Amino acid sequence: MTSAAFNFELVAQQGSARAGIFHTPHGSIPTPVFAPVGTQATVKAVTPLQLQELGAHLLLANTYHLYLRPGDELIAELGGLHHFMNWPHPILTDSGGFQVFSLSNQRKVDDEGVTFRSHIDGSTHRLTPEKSIAIQENLGADIIMAFDECASPYERSYVELATQRTHAWAVRSQAAQRRRDQALFGIVQGGVFPVLREQSASFIASLDFPGNAIGGLSVGETKAEMHAMLDIMNSILPTDRPRYLMGVGAPPDLLNGVKRGIDIFDCVLPTRLARHNAAWTHGGRLNLVNAAYARDPRPIDETCACYTCLHYSRAYLRHLILAKEMLAATLLSLHNLHTLLELTRLMRQAIIENRFDAFMQKSLPSLAEGE
Amino acid sequence: MTSAAFNFELVAQQGSARAGIFHTPHGSIPTPVFAPVGTQATVKAVTPLQLQELGAHLLLANTYHLYLRPGDELIAELGGLHHFMNWPHPILTDSGGFQVFSLSNQRKVDDEGVTFRSHIDGSTHRLTPEKSIAIQENLGADIIMAFDECASPYERSYVELATQRTHAWAVRSQAAQRRRDQALFGIVQGGVFPVLREQSASFIASLDFPGNAIGGLSVGETKAEMHAMLDIMNSILPTDRPRYLMGVGAPPDLLNGVKRGIDIFDCVLPTRLARHNAAWTHGGRLNLVNAAYARDPRPIDETCACYTCLHYSRAYLRHLILAKEMLAATLLSLHNLHTLLELTRLMRQAIIENRFDAFMQKSLPSLAEGE
Repeated sequence: MTSAAFNFELVAQQGSARAGIFHTPHGSIPTPVFAPVGTQATVKAVTPLQLQELGAHLLLANTYHLYLRPGDELIAELGGLHHFMNWPHPILTDSGGFQVFSLSNQRKVDDEGVTFRSHIDGSTHRLTPEKSIAIQENLGADIIMAFDECASPYERSYVELATQRTHAWAVRSQAAQRRRDQALFGIVQGGVFPVLREQSASFIASLDFPGNAIGGLSVGETKAEMHAMLDIMNSILPTDRPRYLMGVGAPPDLLNGVKRGIDIFDCVLPTRLARHNAAWTHGGRLNLVNAAYARDPRPIDETCACYTCLHYSRAYLRHLILAKEMLAATLLSLHNLHTLLELTRLMRQAIIENRFDAFMQKSLPSLAEGE
Repeated sequence: MTSAAFNFELVAQQGSARAGIFHTPHGSIPTPVFAPVGTQATVKAVTPLQLQELGAHLLLANTYHLYLRPGDELIAELGGLHHFMNWPHPILTDSGGFQVFSLSNQRKVDDEGVTFRSHIDGSTHRLTPEKSIAIQENLGADIIMAFDECASPYERSYVELATQRTHAWAVRSQAAQRRRDQALFGIVQGGVFPVLREQSASFIASLDFPGNAIGGLSVGETKAEMHAMLDIMNSILPTDRPRYLMGVGAPPDLLNGVKRGIDIFDCVLPTRLARHNAAWTHGGRLNLVNAAYARDPRPIDETCACYTCLHYSRAYLRHLILAKEMLAATLLSLHNLHTLLELTRLMRQAIIENRFDAFMQKSLPSLAEGE
């Protein structure tokens, strides 16, 4: 495995917005890219074939969940995550850190790692940078993440401590890596504090990862704060490596992220909203359970070309929801995923054609209503 | 609409087994055919596109359910069932009778019709032959059913009464029909009593329906009794019209039905078993939740060419089930539906090639284990 396998090719730039291609062992990813989330080695309610038809290039799977069930060793034994979940294209795994820290009372952090209780059976486990990398090597994704600590964004003293730990753990994650066919990304932390973010970005950049991620955003801070942090990242993180904004993915966030030099996004929102009967449209978010749609022959969004909008009325979707039919979650997931995947395609084209600013000005108002 | 739209073409025969084509306004149905059940205008956990890829030619939808929710008038207003549920191919609706009679304490039958309480909100409704036909005309399926009464198969005096009612209602259903672009099928009843079945088949045959259905089987009688009743039907029902065995669809039942001159089947079993983690194989029924499959890299059935078997291990399917992921129901439904659809294709080919008996002798033992 040569490093060329992870070459990041910049195709075009407009301002800070970038169109690129990230080459991985399981295929090349055109960027900007949105990665649907397959928490437990499946994107909820959607088949891999449907994801391919939607034009997905990269999926995310969760280290924490797969370590607990069915176990990373079992997945390795069965040929790795690509084969296990039937996704022969690029996959990204997170480090498990974010999920573990979300357990709040169920975990205890020290400088060496984190001890936590399983949400499934209460059993006790320990994650360290070395363990996280070993699990991710068993899973076998194309892009893997350094183990980090994500703190609440406003507690300065704790954020400072967590950021220092994140840095020490980034070094240990890097040292722990054995496989050379996985791109290990470092993660910047620092909450909403410009100085901490600057320090963190500089430190992570100095470790020369093949890609860099921005963690600890979209966890309670304002949009203005998020954008300010992204502007800092943009000025410090190397431009010749992909940048990944973790866990962010409402349509306006994608526009604002790409404008600030982000290449990769992931988020559970499209599929989670779908399971709560909600769909993004140009002109507001719809909740399909609303009685107003009982006899509505229109698709979710008349400007949308997804399978759902081409074939189904709001009335039918509402019927499926009231009848508790699984097809509702599938059809709404297809629509919401299409919305983000199509948006990344349109942004990429706009950057290549040097009209990203105009595209953003035109798209943002209607998409922002959907937040 | 000329009657030619419902021409039933016999392509080949071997003994009583028939290969045919039933022409309907929404397409031609090669028979024998298995109709997946879309109770609430959706086959649970499967998209129409997936059904098409499986080679489904005919879907069944339930009049009782759709009358109650979302309402047949709403479906008519939205362009009919084909458009509503995005299935531009042939559809069959039942008469609502079977569901209503299944409500037991919640309904009251008289010679005119049935009064019942909705399972959704307890509201009171009344179905008569005229009302059932009116609802089915609003739904707009290609094949619709006469309103009948399905009684417990062993209570002779009640079966006799119910069969008489079924006959009177068949006449009324026929008289109530207004649309000429729907094939109205009569239904034979008679429980497990040869004399009643003979009388019923003769009476229904005399009404000259474009197709005839056999009701009241697979409701508690033995397989031997079912086969004896089918043999009687086979000797009386006209051979130039399709015969539909209602609600029957385990693999051995399909073989035994086709052998006795049945052309059309429907059953919830493939999708219901799937939601209970069970899959048919050549060599027994598997329950994928079984710990024996935790590390099993094999597909459900190594001889199967369905999407699920081509791409997924038992270990992965078990993981999805334990993780309560919707994809489990989808993948198992695809497999079970494929099993029946493939079986009808193979039976048809065997009849055309005059080797149905040999095919049945070879297939029945392994498939019977799956019962």
